[in-house]
Amino acid sequence: MFDSATLRLERANANEREADFVLKETQMIDTRIIRILADIVGKENVSTEKADRLCYSYDATQQKFLPDVVVHPQTAAEISLIMKMANAERIPVFPRGAGSGFTGGSLPTRGGIVLATERMNQIIEIDTENLVATVEPGVVTEQFQQAVEKVDLFYPPDPASLKFSTLGGNVAECAGGPRCVKYGVTKDFIIGLEIVTPQGDIITTGGPTMKGVVGYDLTKLICGSEGTLAIITRIIIKLLPLPEAKQTMLVLFDSIDGAAQAVSNIIGHRIIPATLEFMDGRTLDCVRQATDLQVPEAAQAVLIIEVDGDKEFLAKQAQKIADIIQPLGVVETRIARTAAESEALWQIRRSVSASLRKVNPDKFNEDICVPRSKVPEMIRKVDAISEKYGISIVNFGHAGDGNIHVNVMIDKKVAGEAEKAEKAIEEVFKGALELGGTMSGEHGVGIAKAPYIPLEITEKAADYMKAIKKALDPNNILNPGKIFLDQ
Amino acid sequence: MFDSATLRLERANANEREADFVLKETQMIDTRIIRILADIVGKENVSTEKADRLCYSYDATQQKFLPDVVVHPQTAAEISLIMKMANAERIPVFPRGAGSGFTGGSLPTRGGIVLATERMNQIIEIDTENLVATVEPGVVTEQFQQAVEKVDLFYPPDPASLKFSTLGGNVAECAGGPRCVKYGVTKDFIIGLEIVTPQGDIITTGGPTMKGVVGYDLTKLICGSEGTLAIITRIIIKLLPLPEAKQTMLVLFDSIDGAAQAVSNIIGHRIIPATLEFMDGRTLDCVRQATDLQVPEAAQAVLIIEVDGDKEFLAKQAQKIADIIQPLGVVETRIARTAAESEALWQIRRSVSASLRKVNPDKFNEDICVPRSKVPEMIRKVDAISEKYGISIVNFGHAGDGNIHVNVMIDKKVAGEAEKAEKAIEEVFKGALELGGTMSGEHGVGIAKAPYIPLEITEKAADYMKAIKKALDPNNILNPGKIFLDQ
Repeated sequence: MFDSATLRLERANANEREADFVLKETQMIDTRIIRILADIVGKENVSTEKADRLCYSYDATQQKFLPDVVVHPQTAAEISLIMKMANAERIPVFPRGAGSGFTGGSLPTRGGIVLATERMNQIIEIDTENLVATVEPGVVTEQFQQAVEKVDLFYPPDPASLKFSTLGGNVAECAGGPRCVKYGVTKDFIIGLEIVTPQGDIITTGGPTMKGVVGYDLTKLICGSEGTLAIITRIIIKLLPLPEAKQTMLVLFDSIDGAAQAVSNIIGHRIIPATLEFMDGRTLDCVRQATDLQVPEAAQAVLIIEVDGDKEFLAKQAQKIADIIQPLGVVETRIARTAAESEALWQIRRSVSASLRKVNPDKFNEDICVPRSKVPEMIRKVDAISEKYGISIVNFGHAGDGNIHVNVMIDKKVAGEAEKAEKAIEEVFKGALELGGTMSGEHGVGIAKAPYIPLEITEKAADYMKAIKKALDPNNILNPGKIFLDQ
Repeated sequence: MFDSATLRLERANANEREADFVLKETQMIDTRIIRILADIVGKENVSTEKADRLCYSYDATQQKFLPDVVVHPQTAAEISLIMKMANAERIPVFPRGAGSGFTGGSLPTRGGIVLATERMNQIIEIDTENLVATVEPGVVTEQFQQAVEKVDLFYPPDPASLKFSTLGGNVAECAGGPRCVKYGVTKDFIIGLEIVTPQGDIITTGGPTMKGVVGYDLTKLICGSEGTLAIITRIIIKLLPLPEAKQTMLVLFDSIDGAAQAVSNIIGHRIIPATLEFMDGRTLDCVRQATDLQVPEAAQAVLIIEVDGDKEFLAKQAQKIADIIQPLGVVETRIARTAAESEALWQIRRSVSASLRKVNPDKFNEDICVPRSKVPEMIRKVDAISEKYGISIVNFGHAGDGNIHVNVMIDKKVAGEAEKAEKAIEEVFKGALELGGTMSGEHGVGIAKAPYIPLEITEKAADYMKAIKKALDPNNILNPGKIFLDQ
């Protein structure tokens, strides 16, 4: 069985860079199965070549699990046949978008079949009368956003991976992003789906209407279910009118407390900006070390605040925000007047991931979320944990909705560092939960957080979730071992 | 068994006004059970008096089913015990808010226990820092709205029943209302729940954070599940800042096509008003007959359009809307300058239900929803159905999100009218589905639409929904026979 202890062991093995693969090849698939798959999707869309399988063995967690075979279906009908065969033969199937997830949701942890959705990449319709789009799961998020913006429409969810992540993956993980503070997460925009169930049935959920209350809401259940309940083959998306304009401001604070208080005060004044991003002092240190961007030494925290909407209203709102935060230790305020200036202000934020990697190649990137007003307290907790374990922890993220990316920086080559990091992370999770928060605001559980599930979800609640999984996937064929290690 | 045919028979019986009750008393509950219930909630909170049971026997469908006993618990712990007992004894439990539903969701169709939530009526917290409230299920919707508006916050969902309906009922049915076109439905504001499962476990789902992706989203699954999956004992609600101002306009059109086109054009111009309500010519006829409100004879349709937000922006947006709709056969435009004037404009809309009842006491009130642009086509379909069956059908509702209240007007005393109405309704449902719509935008299925479920939900999809019900409620104790007649 694939339990928590096994996972830790495998993760430790994965960390040995010399090791080519974590799991030995399972070889559960013989040529008969390959032939069936080729019959379903065409020979050219099935691969057992090691080089191909390698490409589908990892995600952003940098863990690797080699699948036996990779298939590239193009239709729900093909996927239906694959699932029926997989059920009959008891072969696990791992659906995969772009493999950009941070928790291992798409990793083929038990070998078997990787079901890749790249060929299902059509924007089927953008209905400008009803502000609704229909897409296939393999459409890349940014390409979709650009397509709808061309017709003055707007799809807000903007995960950092949007240049390569797919909408199918976004739905499966319920992706977030900076703009979610005002507009909501992926789930809030998904109004209907076509799915293939683990047993191979093609069903539709929801539809293109703005309201609908007939039967249980399978649409929202599938959103964020991490590919464990169904394979998404079509997505119906609610769009918004594109805001007329936006205004970006970058504010440097002399303390993290000042920045965190600013967030609380802005929201407390009944203003919800389109984005409200923060970076702490350690993040700024990394940026200073790794780039030549201008970040004054006095700055110990940064907020990037963006407001959008009607042009005249924006100026008024931006001024109100400036007034609210002025007393909180502002070192400098930069306001963008043009799109180019706005882009320049975002450079600091966009440089963070690369800067962190440059300064410190090994890190665990967590994404706790707490009630917004608890961000200062959470940062203090993280600082204490950092001190206790003697590990640098760097915080940045979506302060507006309390979603903090906690980056635990280690050197995996130093013996004991990874273990210390794991303990620190567990304390971070516990800290977030004590404040009424959650272990994950947008990355999901996958395998990375699965060992910690009992911290957040009671055994009873987990039992009901597992009962739902069992009802939909009695043979545990679809993305097994994700979210709950024991399923 | 309680199947579709039984239901129709019972409904027909219910329509005979002389009949006191539809079902004979089931007497499944003996004094031993009553004693256990009294032990759990206190003697004073259990009633088997016929007068009390009568009060809990009906809802807005005007159908009546007598429960054996009514209990009034105050805590989740009490409800947990009730459910455990009910499971052991196989007694059905029917949770009930204010009983204002239009589809029979709260009707005790199989006798047993009515579990009334009136005593769980506390607003536990309004967190003005995080824009989040926590309430008990028995809080009346309007009272909650007023409480949050006092601190400049905003809870948009506004079902017509808001003066008496409860938040628990709103969540169970996923209530809508005029403001949902801009702000979304009840579900979009519910971020966490405490529930008692059919088996008596108390679990929490979601929480007070703006994001959270750990485990399956039971919160959204419970929303709109019509009291069949869990009893809601606590609700965590996301709030918005209260808009600074609003502006109401009432526009009279010389044709329904003009009004419907206006809706399409407004949305097509990337404007989503806070409300976009319409009434057709027959509705206006009823209003003229039943009230002394000024509605010019030339008016064949009315739109009430409300925009909200920043004061200066409103005037600009209202002007843009006026420009867009001017060429579409506008008879008259009335613009409210004050709150009192706004209230006056709403009078026509608010008088509709009473006017309809006065003109024609018997009606079936359906609430189909189609893609917004299909509203004109749908109205034409309804007109054709009305003509075919020689029955007056009156349409009004939330045009902005395509949610049309189709009121089939009959005289139940005339033999054959009810049957004709049922056939007409089935055709209306089919018409909506042909246009990519749904049978219900906000009222739910309950028992009223349960016979029509196969029109909208395929057998396979229904099987998955029933599998979820079975997983959570293996003994089919909680609100049995709702949504799916055969469960």
